[in-house]
Amino acid sequence: MDALQQVLVAGGWHDAVAPAGRFRARDPATGEEIGPWFPVSGAEEVEAAVMAAEAAAPELAAADPVRVAAFLDAYADGIEAAADELVALAHAETALAASPRLRDVELPRTSGQLRQAARAAREASWTHPVIDTAAGLRSAYGPLGRPVVVFGPNNFPFAFNAVAGSDFASAIAARNPVLAKAHPLHPATSRALARIAHAALRGAGLPAAAVQMLYHLEPATGLALVGRRAIGAVAFTGSRAGGLRLKAAADAAGVPFYAELSSVNPVFLLDGALAERGEALAQEFFASCTMGSGQFCTNPGLVVVPRSAAGDAFAAAAAARFDAAPAQVLFSEDGRRQLHAAVDALLQAGAQRVAGAAAPEGDGFRVAPALLSADGEAFLADAARLQGEAFGPVSLLVRSADAAQARAIAQAFEGNLTATVYRAADGGDDAEAAALLPLLRPRVGRLIVDRMPTGVAVSPAMNHGGPFPAASHPGFTAVGMPGAIRRFAALHSYDHVPDALLPPLLRDRNPGGVWRQVDGRWTVADLGEGG
Amino acid sequence: MDALQQVLVAGGWHDAVAPAGRFRARDPATGEEIGPWFPVSGAEEVEAAVMAAEAAAPELAAADPVRVAAFLDAYADGIEAAADELVALAHAETALAASPRLRDVELPRTSGQLRQAARAAREASWTHPVIDTAAGLRSAYGPLGRPVVVFGPNNFPFAFNAVAGSDFASAIAARNPVLAKAHPLHPATSRALARIAHAALRGAGLPAAAVQMLYHLEPATGLALVGRRAIGAVAFTGSRAGGLRLKAAADAAGVPFYAELSSVNPVFLLDGALAERGEALAQEFFASCTMGSGQFCTNPGLVVVPRSAAGDAFAAAAAARFDAAPAQVLFSEDGRRQLHAAVDALLQAGAQRVAGAAAPEGDGFRVAPALLSADGEAFLADAARLQGEAFGPVSLLVRSADAAQARAIAQAFEGNLTATVYRAADGGDDAEAAALLPLLRPRVGRLIVDRMPTGVAVSPAMNHGGPFPAASHPGFTAVGMPGAIRRFAALHSYDHVPDALLPPLLRDRNPGGVWRQVDGRWTVADLGEGG
Repeated sequence: MDALQQVLVAGGWHDAVAPAGRFRARDPATGEEIGPWFPVSGAEEVEAAVMAAEAAAPELAAADPVRVAAFLDAYADGIEAAADELVALAHAETALAASPRLRDVELPRTSGQLRQAARAAREASWTHPVIDTAAGLRSAYGPLGRPVVVFGPNNFPFAFNAVAGSDFASAIAARNPVLAKAHPLHPATSRALARIAHAALRGAGLPAAAVQMLYHLEPATGLALVGRRAIGAVAFTGSRAGGLRLKAAADAAGVPFYAELSSVNPVFLLDGALAERGEALAQEFFASCTMGSGQFCTNPGLVVVPRSAAGDAFAAAAAARFDAAPAQVLFSEDGRRQLHAAVDALLQAGAQRVAGAAAPEGDGFRVAPALLSADGEAFLADAARLQGEAFGPVSLLVRSADAAQARAIAQAFEGNLTATVYRAADGGDDAEAAALLPLLRPRVGRLIVDRMPTGVAVSPAMNHGGPFPAASHPGFTAVGMPGAIRRFAALHSYDHVPDALLPPLLRDRNPGGVWRQVDGRWTVADLGEGG
Repeated sequence: MDALQQVLVAGGWHDAVAPAGRFRARDPATGEEIGPWFPVSGAEEVEAAVMAAEAAAPELAAADPVRVAAFLDAYADGIEAAADELVALAHAETALAASPRLRDVELPRTSGQLRQAARAAREASWTHPVIDTAAGLRSAYGPLGRPVVVFGPNNFPFAFNAVAGSDFASAIAARNPVLAKAHPLHPATSRALARIAHAALRGAGLPAAAVQMLYHLEPATGLALVGRRAIGAVAFTGSRAGGLRLKAAADAAGVPFYAELSSVNPVFLLDGALAERGEALAQEFFASCTMGSGQFCTNPGLVVVPRSAAGDAFAAAAAARFDAAPAQVLFSEDGRRQLHAAVDALLQAGAQRVAGAAAPEGDGFRVAPALLSADGEAFLADAARLQGEAFGPVSLLVRSADAAQARAIAQAFEGNLTATVYRAADGGDDAEAAALLPLLRPRVGRLIVDRMPTGVAVSPAMNHGGPFPAASHPGFTAVGMPGAIRRFAALHSYDHVPDALLPPLLRDRNPGGVWRQVDGRWTVADLGEGG
């Protein structure tokens, strides 16, 4: 039997101390165990990591943002240089396509995201400095001064990895140490990323314990970790049940908890759009729903389709694609079991399976894509159960009787990450779109017109978040710099603090050209100069 | 027996439905009951109020911000026009001085705050619009689209009143209906304010249920209210115990809960400052600590004073003032009991009473101001108990052995609203101030130099908040526009939404001259024009 892989704790790679167990990854395509053994960290290891992170926090908070940016840029470079190894590891552990998904989409997105975080750190764009000269007050967002715990999800081994993704980059850009809890379905990928991060960190001259990583925790250990008042904030992406348990523990300790939980991302296909390009929309929907085996937070899991000739044609065209699709590989046996349970729950709530039962599920963690359907009346009669998330290549068509019923359906949604409306190009649906959007607006983070929700651009105007239970707070995004950074920031006000004792970005002189709001006007000028 | 006063529910003044009880205010100076009977609202009343608020939410969210601003301005005007009545009511119910406190400080602050909220609504300064032209994404903060519940505290009958204060003004500026739970110690003041609000609301053409007010709830009713997922957010200012119970109920339902709880607001008096102006500092401290009978969130409840000749002289000068002070009137018998218990807890934890025992407490809810003292060693040995808040005219001097101990004391503080450092004018303390400030920074919302913490300016650069347990989230302020408004906002992203379907402030043309961040630059220009 192999020795256990080392953990990254207190500034270096160490043998696991008193591990609570061990595990290996599996190849989802075969179900076979692969790679070395990794430790499940116990309470003693977690204690050491928290102590080290607390000790590193003041030093990192005081570090020159240029060094932080240098680290993030070097990490991005290192990831790109190691692309072959990273893609091979992630492909083996997740069965996501090496290309285009991992190599050409997710890896560049990850390095690009780290570079955007670096830029935000250099430009201080996340700090939102405000100067009120009459009141003698100045404020800016600053580091929490405490460690941030990041729980990574299973579905993005790079871009949301606990030690490389958006939460990681955001917390570091705000100069907080990160204690990463990698997802146990891709431990070798996480280890390879953490090695690159560790090397980059030393090169940048930042505290070595600014980045730590554990592979796996027992549930009770995770709950105890996030319930420590020493923790500055927690970021979690994953299942609603696990997320809500962690949230309760963090809430009780007053620790801000940023969760991205679950979402069905409703899509409204208006009749004019269907009449105009129903066949193309069926293909667009099918591709979005089955991309990455449907394992996207923004998967279109619910589509509202009118009970019209064009709607029927769309449903038939979509069903044909689902029927013809081969079985798809999920990340884990657990995932497959949960998906089957979710589909069963939808069927029990009144949905019918209209396509996809035929595909044999075969080896590994394969499932058949499935298309379900329910009439609008049935949906409205049991909206709570019929908007349950089925995480995988599954979607529910809700067939609306008319525009009024479609609006009622829109008003029955709980918090979601996104909602989408497809309109006819000739403007014929615009009145109905204009009626639907205000109903959807308070229920989602991102409103989309005429495209599927699965594309999540890393943009300052993105909101990858939404009202509860899609996310834990409606005011923050998990993706997009500098907004995502602000989750890990404290508001710092300075009351009659002399210039020399202020942080550089709040002093009279502004040599870095930081955007600041001075007496109500945004400017990059020094204080007293014209804006 | 008088009839019960009416509640403001569902757009009008109504007799209480199935009240759970009744109560009257008391004159704190005598302890006698005064004024009419008010209802304790029951579950049925709360249900009606929530339903009405939910129904009003979409209409208010869609309202022209100019109307919202007009309401806030008219409300401010109405408050000023009714100043005589309001001051008389508040003075009778709180025993706060009619002048200068109520008439000359708090009332103008309240109307000014409403006008600042109006300006923020008109200028959309709280919405932080971001446009990413390359990605086709635009975002801005928008209304929650759900009711906000505001729990007002006892200590600011105007400026933090649930139906007139900062939380109220902030939630309305973000176009969310407010369900105000007034503080039962000043019901007639709250009723008078709500009448002015109701009249102003009708004049502005906003939904009548946008403002509702109840006087009192039993604890279980309050917990059930904040635990409803229909609630968009809760704002609470008050005691830690009550706040944490409500927070747990809101957290469980995923409802953002903004609490401002408790704080001792440590003040460090450096030796040079004491040598230079110790007598003046003793007076400044005494005045700040006893203003409003010490019933301020930002009361200087803990002062770190070196064990030096200058420190001894300061302590003696402060003690003389506390000894000479008459008893002061608190808001309630409960408050007096809690203050006595808090002082006892400090004494049991090792503090000594050095001044203030002499004043006879007399009629009504009077207490003697008190000055306690503990050595730095004692403080560090039991910092948790010795930083307990005593809400009233009480402060603890912590006598530090040397600068190193003062720094250790700084690192022992839990989250506070403020921390203050007083330095010598000649620069002799600057090195020590520069060492202390980074230690205090992660522990407080507002860092202050050379002035007492009790002045809380309504400024965009204010942070009246801080790390838990001073407040519930380190990133938000309860005072200062537009920051305070953002607590009641959701982040709204728009992905390839055509110009005509965007909210006006995100369209290409920007006729209102709203400050927007376009491709990384802040500008008031139309899209495509120079910034």
